[in-house]
Amino acid sequence: MWRVAGTMLACALAAAHVAAQQVVRYTPADKDLKFLYATVPPVATLNPGDTLETNTVDAFGNVIRKAGDTMAMVKGDNPLTGPFAIAGAEPGDTLVVKILDLAIESPRGVGALAPGFGALNTTSYTPMLNANLPEKIWFYDIDARANQATFHALDSSFSVNIPLQPFLGCIGVAPAGGEARSSIVPAEFGGNMDAHEARPGYTLYLPVSAPGALLYIGDGHAAQGDGEVAGTAIEVPLRVRLQVDIVKRKKIAWPRFENDSSIMAVGAYRPLDDALRIAFSELVSWIHADYGLSELDAYELLSKVARIHLAEMVDPNYVVVAGIDKRYLPKK
Amino acid sequence: MWRVAGTMLACALAAAHVAAQQVVRYTPADKDLKFLYATVPPVATLNPGDTLETNTVDAFGNVIRKAGDTMAMVKGDNPLTGPFAIAGAEPGDTLVVKILDLAIESPRGVGALAPGFGALNTTSYTPMLNANLPEKIWFYDIDARANQATFHALDSSFSVNIPLQPFLGCIGVAPAGGEARSSIVPAEFGGNMDAHEARPGYTLYLPVSAPGALLYIGDGHAAQGDGEVAGTAIEVPLRVRLQVDIVKRKKIAWPRFENDSSIMAVGAYRPLDDALRIAFSELVSWIHADYGLSELDAYELLSKVARIHLAEMVDPNYVVVAGIDKRYLPKK
Amino acid sequence: MWRVAGTMLACALAAAHVAAQQVVRYTPADKDLKFLYATVPPVATLNPGDTLETNTVDAFGNVIRKAGDTMAMVKGDNPLTGPFAIAGAEPGDTLVVKILDLAIESPRGVGALAPGFGALNTTSYTPMLNANLPEKIWFYDIDARANQATFHALDSSFSVNIPLQPFLGCIGVAPAGGEARSSIVPAEFGGNMDAHEARPGYTLYLPVSAPGALLYIGDGHAAQGDGEVAGTAIEVPLRVRLQVDIVKRKKIAWPRFENDSSIMAVGAYRPLDDALRIAFSELVSWIHADYGLSELDAYELLSKVARIHLAEMVDPNYVVVAGIDKRYLPKK
Amino acid sequence: MWRVAGTMLACALAAAHVAAQQVVRYTPADKDLKFLYATVPPVATLNPGDTLETNTVDAFGNVIRKAGDTMAMVKGDNPLTGPFAIAGAEPGDTLVVKILDLAIESPRGVGALAPGFGALNTTSYTPMLNANLPEKIWFYDIDARANQATFHALDSSFSVNIPLQPFLGCIGVAPAGGEARSSIVPAEFGGNMDAHEARPGYTLYLPVSAPGALLYIGDGHAAQGDGEVAGTAIEVPLRVRLQVDIVKRKKIAWPRFENDSSIMAVGAYRPLDDALRIAFSELVSWIHADYGLSELDAYELLSKVARIHLAEMVDPNYVVVAGIDKRYLPKK
Repeated sequence: MWRVAGTMLACALAAAHVAAQQVVRYTPADKDLKFLYATVPPVATLNPGDTLETNTVDAFGNVIRKAGDTMAMVKGDNPLTGPFAIAGAEPGDTLVVKILDLAIESPRGVGALAPGFGALNTTSYTPMLNANLPEKIWFYDIDARANQATFHALDSSFSVNIPLQPFLGCIGVAPAGGEARSSIVPAEFGGNMDAHEARPGYTLYLPVSAPGALLYIGDGHAAQGDGEVAGTAIEVPLRVRLQVDIVKRKKIAWPRFENDSSIMAVGAYRPLDDALRIAFSELVSWIHADYGLSELDAYELLSKVARIHLAEMVDPNYVVVAGIDKRYLPKK
Repeated sequence: MWRVAGTMLACALAAAHVAAQQVVRYTPADKDLKFLYATVPPVATLNPGDTLETNTVDAFGNVIRKAGDTMAMVKGDNPLTGPFAIAGAEPGDTLVVKILDLAIESPRGVGALAPGFGALNTTSYTPMLNANLPEKIWFYDIDARANQATFHALDSSFSVNIPLQPFLGCIGVAPAGGEARSSIVPAEFGGNMDAHEARPGYTLYLPVSAPGALLYIGDGHAAQGDGEVAGTAIEVPLRVRLQVDIVKRKKIAWPRFENDSSIMAVGAYRPLDDALRIAFSELVSWIHADYGLSELDAYELLSKVARIHLAEMVDPNYVVVAGIDKRYLPKK
Repeated sequence: MWRVAGTMLACALAAAHVAAQQVVRYTPADKDLKFLYATVPPVATLNPGDTLETNTVDAFGNVIRKAGDTMAMVKGDNPLTGPFAIAGAEPGDTLVVKILDLAIESPRGVGALAPGFGALNTTSYTPMLNANLPEKIWFYDIDARANQATFHALDSSFSVNIPLQPFLGCIGVAPAGGEARSSIVPAEFGGNMDAHEARPGYTLYLPVSAPGALLYIGDGHAAQGDGEVAGTAIEVPLRVRLQVDIVKRKKIAWPRFENDSSIMAVGAYRPLDDALRIAFSELVSWIHADYGLSELDAYELLSKVARIHLAEMVDPNYVVVAGIDKRYLPKK
Repeated sequence: MWRVAGTMLACALAAAHVAAQQVVRYTPADKDLKFLYATVPPVATLNPGDTLETNTVDAFGNVIRKAGDTMAMVKGDNPLTGPFAIAGAEPGDTLVVKILDLAIESPRGVGALAPGFGALNTTSYTPMLNANLPEKIWFYDIDARANQATFHALDSSFSVNIPLQPFLGCIGVAPAGGEARSSIVPAEFGGNMDAHEARPGYTLYLPVSAPGALLYIGDGHAAQGDGEVAGTAIEVPLRVRLQVDIVKRKKIAWPRFENDSSIMAVGAYRPLDDALRIAFSELVSWIHADYGLSELDAYELLSKVARIHLAEMVDPNYVVVAGIDKRYLPKK
């Protein structure tokens, strides 16, 4: 039986699902892919404790395959697999997603400069009168056995290997209040966070805002730099194995990550200043509520030992992950 | 003889100072401390290649010593030791500062909530009508042998050890154009960057904007979290040993760091969005100029492997350090 | 017959609706009010050229009526009347809304400090650890004949009259890509722009992103200061008369306003810096496309004569309206 | 005798200078121009109540005169006339500057696109990888009798007249703490605010931070649009007549304007969000201190009647002027 390691959950886990945990397998057809985080009928329903085995196409819908292919061939960014309902999840609960395994399903990853996208390019939300950067596409050889991808420069013969660290760029649920948000948006519901914490060894907590939570995943990344500054990671299709659970009547406002050594809170907004304020406010609240430090003691302690992962500054909202090593926290 | 490891300097180092390198020792009296990065007469002059041995008081001028001491006792924030002139340095050159050794000179470090300061507090530049957070002071026991400081919660009996990682919160030169800037400001000239990269094992490059460069240091930190969110690190006086050099006719726009494994560019402005843009623009330029990748290849590569250190979001400008591991770069 | 004065439309107006223009009357029941800009079945369908007569409840659903009423009584912010389909409108067209008449339907308007809302208060997107401002409600007497509302201070006996200038705080259409957005959000689709330009004498252009455009209105304001800094205007229910039209195959990216003397472009994002960049980029494009100045001539001219209306800095996106007097533009 | 109309000063004005008010005349030579707001010896000393008659060169030092002249000819931006000491002014006082008269001293004004400058151009603080906009210069005919300047498009034959509204783009004092700031910077000390309120009919209040206050002026503008988006106004040399006074022991934090009908507070920082927060916090404080409304009543009232002038978004700090008509305030 799977036991949630997370301190957050220790006392709250429903015992009901100790029984028979299932493995649910699902393979989307092209027509099943979604481009919104929204409240729509699920493609499958999981019970708390169940494992999901499924797959995701890459951020471009797997259509960029060879030299000469162009962004104009892309039907929509970040096609999503899902949604998956979790039986019994209701608004006010917390969804728990434990990433078990991610495998890259392509010998080739893609990186791209897309017009109007990127931290050092004029964009639709930071428009300027300067000429846009040109569209460019880089292909990365994926060598799963050697656990590396190879970057090939376009303007010289230079190439270099990059270690693989696959993660889900997109993982989120139906937003609150009936909103439907584009698959390129990260926000309170998770979504396009582009945070490498969405990988094996980590558990993600998401606020449930619709019956069944409605989990979506997509946008696999073979590796990504902090900030994802040019607008893409090494974009790949993934085979995904993850396990879901729910914490009843535990309400969180923003996504949270946890692994064996750390707890981490996510802020997603603009400018980065506010994303950081959100992430740290959430982290202070978490430490106060679950570890018993006063808010000001937690704030002071974070000023001395916090770690910040600036995940991306290219999507409609920017993402900051603020974390603290558990060795600095009181025992629960 | 000291040889600059930095790739940036390989071809440019003046040979003149191969000769006799000196150790210059300097101990400031209280009246010698400065509160501005400015063009003023130096307290001492070093030759390129010389080593400086000196010391810095803590961010509060060493006046917060025991329970009951208050921020009202502080005469000025971040008293600076210096400036030190480097013979032969002229505007358009680059100053090279290699941090050799930092030792904490106190059994006690200080952390504080100061009214109007901190990322989660209303401040003079992000004012609100809410009541300010209260002033609070935390004292940290420093155990140099065990290499740790101890945090003691104010509102509970919790305490925890934090590994020491001493660095100079302030290190900078006289600004360009005759400007004089407060010791709490980080900007093009370096200054109050609160970047833990200003520690042994790292080399800092600063743009020279005044004859002699005029190096200032201060604001020793025993340890600090990313973002320095509550407004202080573990504030300590330091004994400092560093070595200076100059690269003639090498003009940089913003501070840069380098160690054996990485190159890093600094951006310091508001909002963080622009600090990040500055840091990455500089890093792209650096890679292009010194490692030969085209700008767009460098930009794409950084999107896959860059590392961001968000140093602080509490000073008048915010600081982002963007870096790349040298193993991802072409040989020089 | 109504003829669109807007220069933007001169050549593009469909001739088809010259015929019989209707007046469509619609009164929503409580259950008909919406809280999302979304693609849902319309409550009524208008033909291009038709006039709509309807009404809106205030931002609090008309539930705050007397001393002692509290924000906890509010079911949802900004209940919307609609949506109204416009026959023949398709994605890629522009919806034209001419505000003909607005009448306040209450002897009393409401202003409020709501926890977590306001430019000088900690909010959910700019959170801090400071205590929130207290909830407060102000009632404004509305004297339609004298055309004024009366502010009564809560903490003193001071009162003062404010001229009425009623407008629709919310006016927008279904978002692009199937998104559904909260009634408190302003964005590309218009929405909660809190721009006093949404009043008689002005014409609003909105991008059509769903069949029928699907027009929503609400959040009547009797008067509002620039920035709407404390989070509310004088909130009132309105009787509304407006006329709709469509420009086929005219694609705009953001809302635009026009009156007899000026053209104005809207930017809605965070931070204000980007809202301003959006508004001015759109205005440069508009001048270039419809008035024939080169982009750089338009940019320079705006630097000399533009007018900025900073509509609000309190909603999830901030709104800047950038305009130019037509007397500075070439004849069309 | 000149009597300060400003409500702020009513009770505080020193009676000492009722006596003989002088007219001080000063004409700077090129070598007398300054490029810093700093604490340096004054070029002349005024008594409170004295009138100053002097002149300023344009933002380019009057060197751009004819087609073919380029920005490379400019020695430094915003050459300043001054500083002028005001006898008796000490840190903690407020300097009062009443703009009496401004006359344009050239038949020609200049506008320019300078590389790295402008709200819709990549800049040194918002750098991108896009190609910079080209340098361009526009000349404006000044017709003082007709009170207009004429814009001539570069890329077409279009020209149009613009009404003159001359003001001082730069007006400021020595900064606090011994800082010296570039003449292109607006901040607490005033400086390059590019606010058209610095014109006849308005009174400017500045915080005194150095003995004598040390007033600098420059950067005359014949007319300017809100935001000064392309980076320049119609740049002209000015003949200036202004009157100075001091309010002893009246400490303000940021510049303030006042005319017969309104009071206005200035915020200067980045992003615009924070500039707005500063301006409104100051305005709330001003209303509370001088007009007796509680802070929350003032905040609510501003949400209904405030006016925002977004002066510029192109300098190192951005400037927001927040104002309220005095008819909405209690009598003093």
